[in-house]
Amino acid sequence: MKKADIGLVGLAVMGENLVMNMESKGFTVAVYNRTTEKVKNFTEGRAAGKNIIGTYSLEELVASLEKPRKIMMMVKAGAAVDALIDQLLPLLEEGDILIDGGNSHFPDTIRRTAYVEEKGILYVGSGVSGGEEGALNGPSLMPGGSPAAWQHVKPIFQAICAKVEDGSPCCDWVGENGAGHFVKMVHNGIEYGDMQLICEAYQLMRDGLDMSAEEMHEVFAAWNETELESYLIEITRDILGYRDESGEITLDHILDTAGQKGTGKWTAVSSLDEGVPLTLISEAVFSRCLSAIKEERVKASAVFPRSIPALIGDKKEFIECIRKALYASKIISYAQGYALMRAAAKTYSWNLNYGGIALMWRGGCIIRSVFLGKIKEAYDKDAALENLLLDSYFAETIKALVPAWREVVAYAVKVGIPMPAFASALSYFDGYTSANLPANLLQAQRDYFGAHTYERTDAPRGKFFHTNWTGRGGNTTANTYDV
Amino acid sequence: MKKADIGLVGLAVMGENLVMNMESKGFTVAVYNRTTEKVKNFTEGRAAGKNIIGTYSLEELVASLEKPRKIMMMVKAGAAVDALIDQLLPLLEEGDILIDGGNSHFPDTIRRTAYVEEKGILYVGSGVSGGEEGALNGPSLMPGGSPAAWQHVKPIFQAICAKVEDGSPCCDWVGENGAGHFVKMVHNGIEYGDMQLICEAYQLMRDGLDMSAEEMHEVFAAWNETELESYLIEITRDILGYRDESGEITLDHILDTAGQKGTGKWTAVSSLDEGVPLTLISEAVFSRCLSAIKEERVKASAVFPRSIPALIGDKKEFIECIRKALYASKIISYAQGYALMRAAAKTYSWNLNYGGIALMWRGGCIIRSVFLGKIKEAYDKDAALENLLLDSYFAETIKALVPAWREVVAYAVKVGIPMPAFASALSYFDGYTSANLPANLLQAQRDYFGAHTYERTDAPRGKFFHTNWTGRGGNTTANTYDV
Repeated sequence: MKKADIGLVGLAVMGENLVMNMESKGFTVAVYNRTTEKVKNFTEGRAAGKNIIGTYSLEELVASLEKPRKIMMMVKAGAAVDALIDQLLPLLEEGDILIDGGNSHFPDTIRRTAYVEEKGILYVGSGVSGGEEGALNGPSLMPGGSPAAWQHVKPIFQAICAKVEDGSPCCDWVGENGAGHFVKMVHNGIEYGDMQLICEAYQLMRDGLDMSAEEMHEVFAAWNETELESYLIEITRDILGYRDESGEITLDHILDTAGQKGTGKWTAVSSLDEGVPLTLISEAVFSRCLSAIKEERVKASAVFPRSIPALIGDKKEFIECIRKALYASKIISYAQGYALMRAAAKTYSWNLNYGGIALMWRGGCIIRSVFLGKIKEAYDKDAALENLLLDSYFAETIKALVPAWREVVAYAVKVGIPMPAFASALSYFDGYTSANLPANLLQAQRDYFGAHTYERTDAPRGKFFHTNWTGRGGNTTANTYDV
Repeated sequence: MKKADIGLVGLAVMGENLVMNMESKGFTVAVYNRTTEKVKNFTEGRAAGKNIIGTYSLEELVASLEKPRKIMMMVKAGAAVDALIDQLLPLLEEGDILIDGGNSHFPDTIRRTAYVEEKGILYVGSGVSGGEEGALNGPSLMPGGSPAAWQHVKPIFQAICAKVEDGSPCCDWVGENGAGHFVKMVHNGIEYGDMQLICEAYQLMRDGLDMSAEEMHEVFAAWNETELESYLIEITRDILGYRDESGEITLDHILDTAGQKGTGKWTAVSSLDEGVPLTLISEAVFSRCLSAIKEERVKASAVFPRSIPALIGDKKEFIECIRKALYASKIISYAQGYALMRAAAKTYSWNLNYGGIALMWRGGCIIRSVFLGKIKEAYDKDAALENLLLDSYFAETIKALVPAWREVVAYAVKVGIPMPAFASALSYFDGYTSANLPANLLQAQRDYFGAHTYERTDAPRGKFFHTNWTGRGGNTTANTYDV
């Protein structure tokens, strides 16, 4: 029997679909699942008659693979990955490759790469995005880990991944150890942000303009023909138009309590660690938390009743303002996400290719959009771009959007429709473009109560001053004890 | 020679001042510092002629103490604390008490309590707030750790701490292991929020109303006679009025790049871990990060030049609106902080006394204010209050503030003055009081691309549905692989 080109462990929806995708591109795939009944069901079902080999033990899986063996793990992130690695390592030989295609946290991937490499095995931690559809028809793949593994994994990954119009694969080597999973994490954070932005636009129309799902379906359909063209706008259009068997709009019956799986949170925590303001994504994560406490919100809504007044002004024009506010906020979200990647690249010594990352996200994944092509262009023009807002295209674009953006946020603020992402994006924009923030007062306060010292506008940077503000404190500065 | 009541290690400004404070209350204090020159300088200087015993080794320090020995460590949070513990443990006997009065991260204090208790020694991790002034004249103290230690530490801590008008000490037992440092961490997060709120009010007046430091000095002086009466408003008043030797306003020459020491960040991370929206404090932390990239902001300000139009309307009235917006936002910040403490108490099995915590913060510490008395009253009325906004006093207060709050944020949004904390607080208020958020769309999206399932408004909670939105995906739901 022909040996398999790659093995895959974990036959949940993503794993199954990846296997079907690989097989359809001419690869023979050996599969294994801890609950072996799934192997049977799969090989006798969807996989029947295909070059897919069912195996019923890890030994059998390993024995069925061409060398160097490539085993892709599609199991739940966390302890299950460590356990599987420890089960597999004794069965592998030098030069074999373990691939984690789950949503692992990048520090785990950094740790595992070192651990696995120590045993002479190569390790790849790869972001996989695109949901079940993407896995089947072409996901966005973000591999990082042991550089020596890339040449072996590349033919399979670049065959199964999504392609952009010109045929470029939405998959390239991201960087060492945890770089792939880090970039996937930022992707997911951006996904949280994009989804929240769409939700806010939807809420403005639903609650502010009293629009029906049908009307909003038309709006999103139109928006998808503009710069906003993207997978998430497209599925929002479809969702708004989707009716159940009895003809009801399904969306109108869905409970407004969002779940989260942690990767958005990781992105926010990482931005706090790096000291990079990721205000929009953080608000998106917090919005999910707030949505989850439905009972408390219902109670609070009775304490603070509020009725939204009808819009004064042209509805169609205002809808266009919402579109512009969404687009402007989206630019901010990506500017923040890219700023985080720049900071992390420095921290972890990754040589990230920012244009390449935009290309990887250009197709296949949840945040795929035409817009990412513009980001790629910006980094093609200047690979060392400090912030997306400083790129001439985005600068001019934002300038044109700002008036509508301000109008929409001010309207929401006045009538009481929560716009955490739109508003935080605008605060960031106004802060980032302010030569002078009020932090001089903050520094004075810190020096007043904690002798923390400050720098001056009329002295060189790095020279620190302390004022004895009260005339009572001493001249001792807080060098060892931190308030 | 009389043995000392307590020993203290670490003679930076906070340590020195705590020693002076203890001694002034009738306690004999033995002191030690790694750089022993500091011991000499201190005992021959400020401490001369007082009941303060200088020691030049840890052995000497331990030998100079009454049993059970109490040693307070005032050293830099982190590895220095672990090292000091390991140096001290062999010198101590069962029942002795180690007290960490530094800004340790609460998970470290949880770990250290277990570690030290294992050796038969008691451990206290205590928040100490109030800066150098507070340490000297009465800090707010938030002790947690080994419950058996409290009876021994209490007489000293409740003697040296701040007192409120009726004489109640701003110090009580917080809870087991890391509870004290956790509450101190939240205190610091709230401090970040309070400072940012004041900065935003200042910026509105400085940049929006073109007011001089002198004028703003008058405003803050007046505000300190209102519900806003607090230490931070008071020192802001003083800072705005402070002139250097040449008669210049010192504040106007301070660089607007704020430092941070990590505890605000810890609070934000903790809120993400607990899934409790701490949007205002997170924005405050991010604002410091943004302030730090001064050069980039200056560059961006040239790309996006902006001039703030003069206010249309009554200036005095608008200043009162700013005051109301500040007060409303401050209520939100505390509501969020208390929600975080409630969640953490559940996670870590702490039986936190929320009214008691308000009392501990009522005096001595940086966030001390009249306002905290109102919070104490709210929790005295209902110890199980879910959210401060649901207390009748705060509900009525907020209702009265809302129109001015909306006006100020809308104004800032329109003219381009960044108000991250004011605006995020308002978004939270509008979200928390919304019975229906747009998260139904978010759930539909997640189910569309990741088969994540959703709940329905017309079905019981806990029942999950999946729609085959495209007609193409299968009925497999994403139970093991997480997008």
